[in-house]
Amino acid sequence: MATLPEIPELPVEQVSRSSFAPFGDLIEADEATAFDTINAGTTRRFTDLTRIRLSGDNAQASVHIYRAAAVHEPVELRQLERHPHGSQLFMPLQGQAFIAVVADGDAVPDAGTLRAFLVSAGRGINLGPGVWHHPLLSLADSDFLVVERADPAHNLEEHALPAPLRLALPPGIPS
Amino acid sequence: MATLPEIPELPVEQVSRSSFAPFGDLIEADEATAFDTINAGTTRRFTDLTRIRLSGDNAQASVHIYRAAAVHEPVELRQLERHPHGSQLFMPLQGQAFIAVVADGDAVPDAGTLRAFLVSAGRGINLGPGVWHHPLLSLADSDFLVVERADPAHNLEEHALPAPLRLALPPGIPS
Repeated sequence: MATLPEIPELPVEQVSRSSFAPFGDLIEADEATAFDTINAGTTRRFTDLTRIRLSGDNAQASVHIYRAAAVHEPVELRQLERHPHGSQLFMPLQGQAFIAVVADGDAVPDAGTLRAFLVSAGRGINLGPGVWHHPLLSLADSDFLVVERADPAHNLEEHALPAPLRLALPPGIPS
Repeated sequence: MATLPEIPELPVEQVSRSSFAPFGDLIEADEATAFDTINAGTTRRFTDLTRIRLSGDNAQASVHIYRAAAVHEPVELRQLERHPHGSQLFMPLQGQAFIAVVADGDAVPDAGTLRAFLVSAGRGINLGPGVWHHPLLSLADSDFLVVERADPAHNLEEHALPAPLRLALPPGIPS
């Protein structure tokens, strides 16, 4: 009997500030690094973790809440998108983990460079302008704060991958 | 016997978009209002809930995490501050409630207009530029995402209140 064609798998790696740096900033309150103490000692401030980056005329940053449904296996990746004129920040509002899929590439994504990062509890990301990425992949039904350039319809490019990939979710993720 | 002088109390009111509008935007995902459905139906987007507002040369929005200790009674208000050149957004990252204290006033706060809002679970605020407010009053040990104009040291004015006020915390708040 002929076997069905296999869909290649993309492994999921733990994110870190350095591994994510080519694609944007990891947003985390890391007590091992420097912080200020403000508000009469009641607040530790982890300062300037990322900047909102915008280009073009009349650029303004707009704030949304995304209410995302959890992904379930199998998660197949078929298309990426990017926002050439602004960064895009995702911060989970119930401390949940999510997965950021990104790739290098200029006019089109370079599928050979795809990477999937597990952004663990309490952390967020700010994708750099023009970085190819998959739409939000949340591991729980939950809300995210999103900060991006206003007028997203004129700040969106989409590109199909040459072949679908299946995300190899780490053990313990509900299927 | 003479009684000790009483410190006047400021009541805490539940926040709503309309009651908070003179001071900024309430950030909430209200399913009773319109939302878009995006990402192949997996995400409801509550769109453009607020804008990051900046003024002055080379204005950039910077992102911090504030790790706040819970307030305990009695909470006495002695000083307000404001940021004339940018809005300041506070979004709780563990869904907890907090209290926003604000006042009208231009060069100095008008103490007669002080109001305290209970921002209930899952909601955030974006203070308008130049709005007088008290530093963060969190009701739990928890983290907040903060988005404000970079270079905050040059975007801060502080003013003591003519007399202290005591916050009348609603029942059920730990003391």
